[in-house]
Order: sequence, then structure tokens, then C-alpha cells
Amino acid sequence: MDVKHLSSFQDFSPEKLLKHNVFQSGRFFLDVYCLQPGQAQKPHRHATSDKVYVVLDGRCRFRVGAEEEVHGPGAAIFAPAGAEHGVANDGPDAARLLVLMSPPPEHA
Amino acid sequence: MDVKHLSSFQDFSPEKLLKHNVFQSGRFFLDVYCLQPGQAQKPHRHATSDKVYVVLDGRCRFRVGAEEEVHGPGAAIFAPAGAEHGVANDGPDAARLLVLMSPPPEHA
Repeated sequence: MDVKHLSSFQDFSPEKLLKHNVFQSGRFFLDVYCLQPGQAQKPHRHATSDKVYVVLDGRCRFRVGAEEEVHGPGAAIFAPAGAEHGVANDGPDAARLLVLMSPPPEHA
Repeated sequence: MDVKHLSSFQDFSPEKLLKHNVFQSGRFFLDVYCLQPGQAQKPHRHATSDKVYVVLDGRCRFRVGAEEEVHGPGAAIFAPAGAEHGVANDGPDAARLLVLMSPPPEHA
């Protein structure tokens, strides 16, 4: 059985946000993003892929379209295809996000 | 911003497993399943959709193909398209699962 434990994806880098793949198929990917305070994923968009962020630990500032909001553990944020989206950890704590994208981008 | 809190999906039924939709598009659905002790989703298969179960609360017995394993909070279980899969809560505690399917079944 293909089982992963989300608690095992805890590697952070002082250099940049780290992305750890949990599962991937041709239909989706599921990653854990690890962000130290001050780290961010710049706003960007995918024309034909949807994304969902779920906060596992910490708090992050999410942007979807023109909106920005800060959310903590248990929040799930939907960034539909075509919408500009990004995330930033303004600190003070490290943050981990479960991130779904469907379908995976062609040039991931 | 389209934000949901996973902690808000807590409705259980004495009758059967309850499925609460968090987000859905033409590319995926994300649900929270709420299972009282003794409740189950019978093994079944989807020819062209992948599924991932993530345990939020409690412990469940998962079946993928011929394998059965019990997993608790933080475990993520991949049931690829074509694989028979199901889940049962043997108790004693209530269980909640975050469930991804991609793409959504045509007759959900």
C-alpha cells in the first residue's frame, strides 16, 4: 500500500521554500511545502490547473486574484485555474502547507 | 477568497458515513468524510480517477487492491485509478478523512 505520513515532510531550507512530493499521477500532484519565516511563493497563475492549499502548521498570507488573507492550521484555500495566486510566510513561525494541483503542470 | 476550515466539517450521522464537499471543479473534488465507529465505504474502483485519503482524526482500516492496513492521523493513502479501494472505521473513535479524487467521477 502506498502510504506516506505528512509528519515526515519536515525539511526546511534557509535558502528558499522547499516542496516535497507526497503523491503524483498524470491527474494531480500532492506536495508538502515547507516555508521558513520570510519565505514565499511569488504570485503566478496556471491557465488549466486548479490548486488548493491546506495549512498544516503555522500561518501564511495567501493571495488569490486581488485578495490577500492570513490563515492558520486547518484552512483550505482554493485557487482556481486562471487566478493569480501565491503564498508568503510573514513569520514568526515555520509553516507547512499541503498543496494539491490538478492536473500537474506540464512543465513542473 | 474561497476558504474553508476543515474543522467546520464535523457532521456525523448514525445512519451512514457522511461526505462533505470542501471544493470541487471539473478537475478534482476534495471532501471530508465523517465515519462513526462501525461505518464504512465498501471497496469499489474508478477506472479513470485517482483517490487519496488523508486521516484527519481517528483511525481507519484502508483497503487498496488486496492489501488492508490501519492508519491514523497524518497518514496519506493513495488509491490509483483502477485499484479496488475502501475504508472502514472499526472504532472505538469517530474518524474524519480528507479525500481527494481527480478527476471527479462522471456520476458522483
